[in-house]
Amino acid sequence: MIANTSKPPYYAIIFTSLHTNVVEGYDAMSSSMIELAKDQPVFLRVESARNELGITVSYWESLEAIKAWKHHLEHSVAREKGRSDWYTKFKVRICNVEKDYGFEK
Amino acid sequence: MIANTSKPPYYAIIFTSLHTNVVEGYDAMSSSMIELAKDQPVFLRVESARNELGITVSYWESLEAIKAWKHHLEHSVAREKGRSDWYTKFKVRICNVEKDYGFEK
Repeated sequence: MIANTSKPPYYAIIFTSLHTNVVEGYDAMSSSMIELAKDQPVFLRVESARNELGITVSYWESLEAIKAWKHHLEHSVAREKGRSDWYTKFKVRICNVEKDYGFEK
Repeated sequence: MIANTSKPPYYAIIFTSLHTNVVEGYDAMSSSMIELAKDQPVFLRVESARNELGITVSYWESLEAIKAWKHHLEHSVAREKGRSDWYTKFKVRICNVEKDYGFEK
């Protein structure tokens, strides 16, 4: 769902990916990584959608939090598996969210 | 597809949305807005995926470019239509992309 983040500034990681035909293990690992990320101290929220292209945006309080997540052991194992099995291509963008606004009916 | 952006820094707009049951006119307007954005002078690229949640990320060279796009007449009309007909909720996040890296098989 739409992430209920705190006031800017905060950080976002935009992860955009194209998948191989290998699906085995992907959903389980993806859910496991989201649960693991939620346990990290300054992880805020995550948003995800996928058609041919997959987009996952996770929100974090600081660059330090992002670095710690990058070096988390289980996450590193998952990333290796992603490179070997699940992704043909991906791009990671580290962003400083400077401003946000919303609309709700 | 995955956007082939230039080297950071550049800007991203993360647009996350939940839709109403009204679909009439949406796809046509969405395509038309993407084409219009591509005609703007410092628009870089766009990425989009949608399940229940829709995520569209567009990339721009500067905040000035984003402001000009926000005030573009046709885009303003589309945004009003979005609020009245197509979206129950959305969030817009303006981000400075500080770093990026990718992987390709």
